[in-house]
Amino acid sequence: MQIDRIGDLDFKVADLSLADFGRKEISLAEHEMPGMMALRREYSEVRPLAGARISGSLHMTVQTAVLIETLVDLGADVRWASCNIFSTQDHAAAAVVIGRNGTPENPTGVPVFAWKGETLPEYWWCTDRMLRWPNAADGSVQGPNMLLDDGGDATLLIHKGVQYEKAGVVPALSEEDADYTEEYSVILDLLRASLSDDPQYWTTTSPSIIGVTEETTTGVNRLYQLAAAGELLFPAINVNDSVTKSKFDNKYGIRHSLVDGINRAVDVLIGGKVALVAGYGDVGKGASESLQGQGARVIIAEADPICALQALMDGYEVATVESAVERADLIITTTGNKDIIGVDHMRRMKHQAILGNIGHFDNEIDMAGLARSGASRIEIKPQVDEWRFPDGHTVIVLSEGRLLNLGNATGHPSFVMSASFSNQVIAQIELFTKPDSWDKEVYRLPKSLDEKVARIHVEALGGELTQLTKDQAEYIGVDVEGPFKPEHYRY
Amino acid sequence: MQIDRIGDLDFKVADLSLADFGRKEISLAEHEMPGMMALRREYSEVRPLAGARISGSLHMTVQTAVLIETLVDLGADVRWASCNIFSTQDHAAAAVVIGRNGTPENPTGVPVFAWKGETLPEYWWCTDRMLRWPNAADGSVQGPNMLLDDGGDATLLIHKGVQYEKAGVVPALSEEDADYTEEYSVILDLLRASLSDDPQYWTTTSPSIIGVTEETTTGVNRLYQLAAAGELLFPAINVNDSVTKSKFDNKYGIRHSLVDGINRAVDVLIGGKVALVAGYGDVGKGASESLQGQGARVIIAEADPICALQALMDGYEVATVESAVERADLIITTTGNKDIIGVDHMRRMKHQAILGNIGHFDNEIDMAGLARSGASRIEIKPQVDEWRFPDGHTVIVLSEGRLLNLGNATGHPSFVMSASFSNQVIAQIELFTKPDSWDKEVYRLPKSLDEKVARIHVEALGGELTQLTKDQAEYIGVDVEGPFKPEHYRY
Amino acid sequence: MQIDRIGDLDFKVADLSLADFGRKEISLAEHEMPGMMALRREYSEVRPLAGARISGSLHMTVQTAVLIETLVDLGADVRWASCNIFSTQDHAAAAVVIGRNGTPENPTGVPVFAWKGETLPEYWWCTDRMLRWPNAADGSVQGPNMLLDDGGDATLLIHKGVQYEKAGVVPALSEEDADYTEEYSVILDLLRASLSDDPQYWTTTSPSIIGVTEETTTGVNRLYQLAAAGELLFPAINVNDSVTKSKFDNKYGIRHSLVDGINRAVDVLIGGKVALVAGYGDVGKGASESLQGQGARVIIAEADPICALQALMDGYEVATVESAVERADLIITTTGNKDIIGVDHMRRMKHQAILGNIGHFDNEIDMAGLARSGASRIEIKPQVDEWRFPDGHTVIVLSEGRLLNLGNATGHPSFVMSASFSNQVIAQIELFTKPDSWDKEVYRLPKSLDEKVARIHVEALGGELTQLTKDQAEYIGVDVEGPFKPEHYRY
Amino acid sequence: MQIDRIGDLDFKVADLSLADFGRKEISLAEHEMPGMMALRREYSEVRPLAGARISGSLHMTVQTAVLIETLVDLGADVRWASCNIFSTQDHAAAAVVIGRNGTPENPTGVPVFAWKGETLPEYWWCTDRMLRWPNAADGSVQGPNMLLDDGGDATLLIHKGVQYEKAGVVPALSEEDADYTEEYSVILDLLRASLSDDPQYWTTTSPSIIGVTEETTTGVNRLYQLAAAGELLFPAINVNDSVTKSKFDNKYGIRHSLVDGINRAVDVLIGGKVALVAGYGDVGKGASESLQGQGARVIIAEADPICALQALMDGYEVATVESAVERADLIITTTGNKDIIGVDHMRRMKHQAILGNIGHFDNEIDMAGLARSGASRIEIKPQVDEWRFPDGHTVIVLSEGRLLNLGNATGHPSFVMSASFSNQVIAQIELFTKPDSWDKEVYRLPKSLDEKVARIHVEALGGELTQLTKDQAEYIGVDVEGPFKPEHYRY
Repeated sequence: MQIDRIGDLDFKVADLSLADFGRKEISLAEHEMPGMMALRREYSEVRPLAGARISGSLHMTVQTAVLIETLVDLGADVRWASCNIFSTQDHAAAAVVIGRNGTPENPTGVPVFAWKGETLPEYWWCTDRMLRWPNAADGSVQGPNMLLDDGGDATLLIHKGVQYEKAGVVPALSEEDADYTEEYSVILDLLRASLSDDPQYWTTTSPSIIGVTEETTTGVNRLYQLAAAGELLFPAINVNDSVTKSKFDNKYGIRHSLVDGINRAVDVLIGGKVALVAGYGDVGKGASESLQGQGARVIIAEADPICALQALMDGYEVATVESAVERADLIITTTGNKDIIGVDHMRRMKHQAILGNIGHFDNEIDMAGLARSGASRIEIKPQVDEWRFPDGHTVIVLSEGRLLNLGNATGHPSFVMSASFSNQVIAQIELFTKPDSWDKEVYRLPKSLDEKVARIHVEALGGELTQLTKDQAEYIGVDVEGPFKPEHYRY
Repeated sequence: MQIDRIGDLDFKVADLSLADFGRKEISLAEHEMPGMMALRREYSEVRPLAGARISGSLHMTVQTAVLIETLVDLGADVRWASCNIFSTQDHAAAAVVIGRNGTPENPTGVPVFAWKGETLPEYWWCTDRMLRWPNAADGSVQGPNMLLDDGGDATLLIHKGVQYEKAGVVPALSEEDADYTEEYSVILDLLRASLSDDPQYWTTTSPSIIGVTEETTTGVNRLYQLAAAGELLFPAINVNDSVTKSKFDNKYGIRHSLVDGINRAVDVLIGGKVALVAGYGDVGKGASESLQGQGARVIIAEADPICALQALMDGYEVATVESAVERADLIITTTGNKDIIGVDHMRRMKHQAILGNIGHFDNEIDMAGLARSGASRIEIKPQVDEWRFPDGHTVIVLSEGRLLNLGNATGHPSFVMSASFSNQVIAQIELFTKPDSWDKEVYRLPKSLDEKVARIHVEALGGELTQLTKDQAEYIGVDVEGPFKPEHYRY
Repeated sequence: MQIDRIGDLDFKVADLSLADFGRKEISLAEHEMPGMMALRREYSEVRPLAGARISGSLHMTVQTAVLIETLVDLGADVRWASCNIFSTQDHAAAAVVIGRNGTPENPTGVPVFAWKGETLPEYWWCTDRMLRWPNAADGSVQGPNMLLDDGGDATLLIHKGVQYEKAGVVPALSEEDADYTEEYSVILDLLRASLSDDPQYWTTTSPSIIGVTEETTTGVNRLYQLAAAGELLFPAINVNDSVTKSKFDNKYGIRHSLVDGINRAVDVLIGGKVALVAGYGDVGKGASESLQGQGARVIIAEADPICALQALMDGYEVATVESAVERADLIITTTGNKDIIGVDHMRRMKHQAILGNIGHFDNEIDMAGLARSGASRIEIKPQVDEWRFPDGHTVIVLSEGRLLNLGNATGHPSFVMSASFSNQVIAQIELFTKPDSWDKEVYRLPKSLDEKVARIHVEALGGELTQLTKDQAEYIGVDVEGPFKPEHYRY
Repeated sequence: MQIDRIGDLDFKVADLSLADFGRKEISLAEHEMPGMMALRREYSEVRPLAGARISGSLHMTVQTAVLIETLVDLGADVRWASCNIFSTQDHAAAAVVIGRNGTPENPTGVPVFAWKGETLPEYWWCTDRMLRWPNAADGSVQGPNMLLDDGGDATLLIHKGVQYEKAGVVPALSEEDADYTEEYSVILDLLRASLSDDPQYWTTTSPSIIGVTEETTTGVNRLYQLAAAGELLFPAINVNDSVTKSKFDNKYGIRHSLVDGINRAVDVLIGGKVALVAGYGDVGKGASESLQGQGARVIIAEADPICALQALMDGYEVATVESAVERADLIITTTGNKDIIGVDHMRRMKHQAILGNIGHFDNEIDMAGLARSGASRIEIKPQVDEWRFPDGHTVIVLSEGRLLNLGNATGHPSFVMSASFSNQVIAQIELFTKPDSWDKEVYRLPKSLDEKVARIHVEALGGELTQLTKDQAEYIGVDVEGPFKPEHYRY
């Protein structure tokens, strides 16, 4: 693949001519992202991220454009790739490359490597390019000194790169890794090429990394596993578990974008239908509310008895996928786990049942098994496939089992991303400006910063906050300015 | 404008090459339109509409394609135009022209005159073409013998045509008609040309019309006014007031398509926002539920105290547009009345307030006033305009004040349209097969047919109906097969 | 049974010493009944009901007390009985007897014949007493000249009385009437005694009756059947079908009082439970919303396909009692029909399933069959019985299958009754002041009066109504002051 | 006050003759408390609490009776008092005293000191009696060795007792304690008498206490404050923060019991009303859902911006009490803080506004200020007072500002209490059977026990739990049997 380059700017996007449309939508999004605007106002003079080289792996959407330009306003240099092959909005990517004051001839923006509909090799190529910086002023090879991650693919690539460079060899894809076959072999190929090209690239560049901020449940789980194994190469801030991230993005963002994705994909009346939602975590809760708000009858499949009890109390039926799959018109996976919907389930589904995933990874639905099953695929339109089984019944699969809200719609709306990204930016500042405060562990943001993010967004919505008196604050043992709850409070 | 013609087939659509995509979506829609499929099964041998020449004016969407092909299967000849300049789905129009067994070279479908984004002159040209049939076998001029209307534009054109032919002159646009200026002058121009071309066209062809079936509140109101004035030229069946139409399409269809339209247009988080919904009829009820289901706080403006009391009981605030407009992030009109949102209201709206209409006509929002107001228009994308007032605040207007669910999304979903169109088809059969049973009045369908439509759709959703015993039926004074309620029952 | 009498006032209530408590609750209720207060303000000088002798059969509650005293303020003489053996609130009955300015020694109120927990013979005795007025000034036997009915028992007694007096004999309970055995034999006994005591009582007094106003679906059905058979003895106004009655009392009143009744009866957590609601008319809609609002999962049983489709669209499962009864924790009947839940259903219910009726009559649940079934009854507390089947499982039956919101709680709240009773009072005025305007038919109130009732209650809740401009009113073809909708509009 | 005594059993309840009714309701409650039944089945042979002397301070309701008898079945000796002056259900108290196999002549139950409507001195006398055990076999003075607390009053009395015994004097009520005046002076009087009677009572008995289990937010806050100050006398398990307690009892229990309390108190239609809910923690969330489920429009007052943002996202208005109090028909406090509603607020309320508290303590509403304000009190019925201000407007105060769900209704329903009490029992077992495992700190139960409680209740509701495969469990890094979430997970 060939990098595009105009002047000093290297990048790879679908079509720079979409930049005008992208810029208009970015302008609208800014109004809906009060957290980004507040951080720009607070920090754009101090520029706390001056000197930061941030490599970002996160869906390259209009909202992410506002994040990127906020990081830039705070002083950072930035490179970007998407963290999903379908999630890039090409007009946003183009606008970010051109920049706020640039022109197609003289782009002044940020190097972006992302387009909608990448192949897996292209995806990992983009991730790789986003992590390779132009050489330093002294000519030395240079990587990022900060990572901003969504799902952990940037972190994964660096850790694997270091591991294999230390081993001196990239292994063949073993039998045990069969589950990862398709995607993982792409990574191995890429790292094999890297090892042959520069056997010390990742080991040379990774020590400069001050830390990573990660915003998904899935990515955070990976980080905790690395930390527990003593293999984490740099500190991490778990942005996902800020309340204003996990309980907003995951719940209210999904409430918005699940029906949006379904509607744009298939435009089927949701009212009166039976929807089977696998998982009743925050994503599942938002998904269920979304579907119920449209008049669907929701059945929840859940392994955690506490979440299952919540589902029952919220008025949903709780059943296993096994027992409910034949009754469902819509099946949505939200678990963050794998192998939730298998081909045998699909064989038992209603004719034209709609199947989609809104959990982070694409292994909740067994797409590989479906491809092998003898079912034939009819593409209705991009990201909407009808798979016909030999008995004639069909299943409509959205976004090939990847995040349907990104593949079939535009993902989370700006306001939700404003809260999530405020946590990202604050975490970047925390890590970068206090580089010596952290071990190679996974940290969460202090509650006071979480409340700060909330406060900005409450005010943007016109909510009036109650001010505690000194007396009241003392009575419940808090400061009048907060934080107002103990660490273990569950909201 | 030039008619396209391949072989004997005259038509005018955007792009015939979209027909394959259209056909795929029509196939999916058929599964979601059990009412159409049931009527095909019941009637395709009998062909009760054999001999019918149906001119249809109704949004040319994928669902309408299924309706058209159902009418054809029942024996009818059909010509079609859209009843809204933005509502045509070009792939559906193309597929209908090509037909189920046709090819681009040899289309075997139906003459369609419709494309997305017509100008007003183009719109009325299409309506006119749809009403002009190829000459009869004996060479005589020929119009439709049946009308299928949505909003009443086909009926309007015929009535005006006859009126002016009788007068022998088409009047100039008078002062009193100022409200209708833009659109009405287009109609007058068209009829003036018609009068000069064939001064007896409408009076010659209209007597063959057995009747019209009409499915909107607005169109039905026009019909009742014509009937009350003794000016109705042919019998009419008010399909709108079938319960399975007005209480389903208007309520559940809007619940589906309002958020869909907003999401596709601006993708703004609805949760936490304040939405002002003008009107709490069936459309307003569906709109409110749609917004509340996404977490908005809804305020209702309503003139009818009964509907207002319902809104209060359903948990909404009831306020006037005057008093609530400054608090709203979203303003949606659903009244079927005119002049609901004026420019003075827009001047007082929040920055980037979103303004859209989901009532039938485009006069709920004063778009003409806005154009004259000194506000400047920035097109974000088709059907999404940001209007900037001199003080800098902007208002985002969807679909130029026309039906936003059609302009910004795909309108009602198939399942809802299946119920509405089942009523249309049954009404066409009733009128056409019993031509002598009707005066020049407006009729409603008998409740038994309404219940038949409901039964088909309940069963399609897997609902089990309870069968009354003879004893129970007698006890409540009904037949065991229904109808189950008195005529005045309100559901 | 002995009538109580103090001075000229005859009555029969449980305990006059409860009057003070009753009066306090009546005062609170007056604030919640803005319709009653508005009618008092409007009419208490004109006294349009002066000369009316109103016999009322309607649950003798605190709210009914406000109705009775409104009728008195408008000039009427009134006698009262409850229309349900369990629904009397004894403190309200006592307060009405004592009157607003009376004392226990010198009561100045209204003759009431009602107490909580009447036997069936007592119930019909009360109804009979309420219909027998003190002799006229000239000593002649006298009955009411107006009836106010709820369920139609007053109307029934008069019609049966006249029928048997004409026949000269009261028949034995025949085989065919087996269904009515218990209650109907009580009526026959009472009329047999009446016939022997005064063979012309009903034929003498009934011709003075100007008309009846009736407020239940059940009572109205009886009236339409009588009218259809040409047997209706006097005109009737169907108050039930005022929108502000049937769509408010039946829906929002039930939403309030169903959970209230269940909670007071058994105090079982409704959240997480499965509730089977038989019937999805207005009562069923309110019941379902009530239960869903508490987190239950609701299954609807319904014979009418239109209502069934609404239930599906509202997100409920639709199934038959047969197929759902084993899954339900709560079973509520709302149909207005009979034989909905039989003993075989009860045999299949879960242990400690809760069974109650909120439809008008007590024949929805087969209580007689239960008594014969071999199940044994354990009274937990008044109106809550646990019936134990031979296999050990039990079913908890509320209010012996009679209206549970009245038997286990206090019935509809004041605000709802304010709307219903406003229609009753307006209908009484219409009938009484225009005695020559009516045939022996069933009439509905004009929409303008319905809207008037709504307007009073909207304003009481702080709702702001929109005022149509003259232009807007003309555009939709209505008067600026309403009525705003065509007669057939369904709200 | 005199202790009642029959045989060896000392107690003080309202009326032993209510025991039969109490026993019937306890039997019904057992079916609704699957957690208690499961623990009895699991542990009644092992009797892990044999040797435990448990003093319990917790609302003496039917549900608590099931808890007490579960503790007894697990081997414990138990004494009991209520933790609220209004919350005792006298029939439950009577039944517990009589015991499952006892008779009025020979009661074999548990010493209970509780009745509905205690005065404050009576309340603290009961608490004191519940903490004083019959002398040990060797004649030595004896207290409990385990505490089970709800709100922390038992713990408070012991800590204050020890403090003042160490100081040798009980202080006069100082100026600084003015807030606590009424209640606190009662405690001081009681401890002054205790000091004079036995100057070493509390210091002698308290060292035997192995620990306390506490289930309210308020009580837990006190414990954390004591622990932070190093003053906690014994270990504590914070049962409140088990998910199956705080997120179920506080949320779903309140959803049930708030409308129940309001309905039984005033029976006012909630639909269409404006409700101001102060606080949007778990209790506030449940309260809001409860009111919205009945058709109220809810406004939230909240100091914590995270909770405020949740309220907005859930569709509620967020405003201060100051700005919203004049619009509200219902005002409910849920904060766990003090001085939420002052007399100045009440002065500004609507006529007949309804004011109640559902937070733990009675200092959320300034009842003392109201008494001093010049407003006059009219008791409508027990726990419902109308306070009339000099300008004539009145405010209806429920349960004198104490927990309205307990004062006006029956508190949480059995099923919810089953979850809470399962945590209590498990915590009692954990503390008592591992006495050496704990420091004088506050502990939470391990998540596995929380999930165990959830599992029992999911199964009781018929929910089917999904079983993770070994592969899936490994993939997300958990054991197949759970726990399934990290400690910080918020549900």
